[in-house]
Amino acid sequence: MKLYGYFRSSAAYRVRIALNLKGLAYEQVAVNLVRGEQRSEGSLVRNPQGLVPVLETDEGRWLTQSLAICEYLEERHPEPSILPDDLEGRARVRALSQVVASDIHPLNNLRVLKYLTGELGIEDERKLDWYRHWIHEGFLAMETMLAGASETGDCCHGNVPTLADVCLVPQVFNARRFDCDLSNYPTILRIADHCDTLTCFADARPVCQPDSH
Amino acid sequence: MKLYGYFRSSAAYRVRIALNLKGLAYEQVAVNLVRGEQRSEGSLVRNPQGLVPVLETDEGRWLTQSLAICEYLEERHPEPSILPDDLEGRARVRALSQVVASDIHPLNNLRVLKYLTGELGIEDERKLDWYRHWIHEGFLAMETMLAGASETGDCCHGNVPTLADVCLVPQVFNARRFDCDLSNYPTILRIADHCDTLTCFADARPVCQPDSH
Repeated sequence: MKLYGYFRSSAAYRVRIALNLKGLAYEQVAVNLVRGEQRSEGSLVRNPQGLVPVLETDEGRWLTQSLAICEYLEERHPEPSILPDDLEGRARVRALSQVVASDIHPLNNLRVLKYLTGELGIEDERKLDWYRHWIHEGFLAMETMLAGASETGDCCHGNVPTLADVCLVPQVFNARRFDCDLSNYPTILRIADHCDTLTCFADARPVCQPDSH
Repeated sequence: MKLYGYFRSSAAYRVRIALNLKGLAYEQVAVNLVRGEQRSEGSLVRNPQGLVPVLETDEGRWLTQSLAICEYLEERHPEPSILPDDLEGRARVRALSQVVASDIHPLNNLRVLKYLTGELGIEDERKLDWYRHWIHEGFLAMETMLAGASETGDCCHGNVPTLADVCLVPQVFNARRFDCDLSNYPTILRIADHCDTLTCFADARPVCQPDSH
């Protein structure tokens, strides 16, 4: 398999973790988002959205959208699983994943920040406020969802990483990169720091990717 | 089952369609987003995010995040299915769903528009530009993904509604409500208009909900 991504892309980071958790080998192709390579003709053929990641399957199909890719990997390579066995647990893990993937990350990705400072003429300081605001909104809810639930363990759901951790860890990485104060989210930090001790997560970190140098 | 929602909430609209497609009976409880009822103490116990929809299951569990709820309904009540049988098809349908649920809708929902006009002091006209910009970005990619694929039929994937249509139809409804010019998206409009002729979609429309009057 071939993963078209970018070392700092949070969505690509998710897919790297999922591939590692499944023990699947993959080749990386760097698409430099800062240079706009995701909007090149070749990139748009793979993904008309002009976004990363794109996973090229063994059959040469291009799959887009990180969560759709993770669900594909889960169905194609069920073991080890990144979703619980029970329906309610699966719903909980998918909901936690969507808090990040729908309600935090999309508001803070590069194209949105560019629209704020470009088209809307927002100053850098208020762009940072925006960034931190949506992190706080999302993390505050997640902290409650995690701290108050008996299902929470070393990871978001029990002691084995699931799709929720796959989404949470890159989001915590982003929050730290933008100097967000995370002291109100002890459960989130405990889980993210635990996951970071695991090789599958550590190897997926932006700094470990070939295009980060 | 009990669905906590709001007639105009696009995410609640998705779940109404999915419940109808599955032929499942449910009771509706209105949470008035304009009056801020989603942030009442009772609402926050059900969903710490302070968002709708929340689905209360037969066992009294509260499920959040519309796509996680739809996946739960699919797993709990597999027939009729809202995902294709083949892995690549499932990945395609989930990716189309996420284009709406991650890359269009989160940028245009009420709390974000309020932050733009409130904290950022953006004028109404430029707020509308913002709204339409993200619709166009997303729909342009979706139109290409749909028009160029042999899998596309009367619906986003074949001739039977899937999760992709569940997401697309409420988004087209929103786009029309905000007077977006949709003339560049003939495939999207053809599919949305076809789905709207089906009872499961028609009955889920905002105007048909008890709290719309």
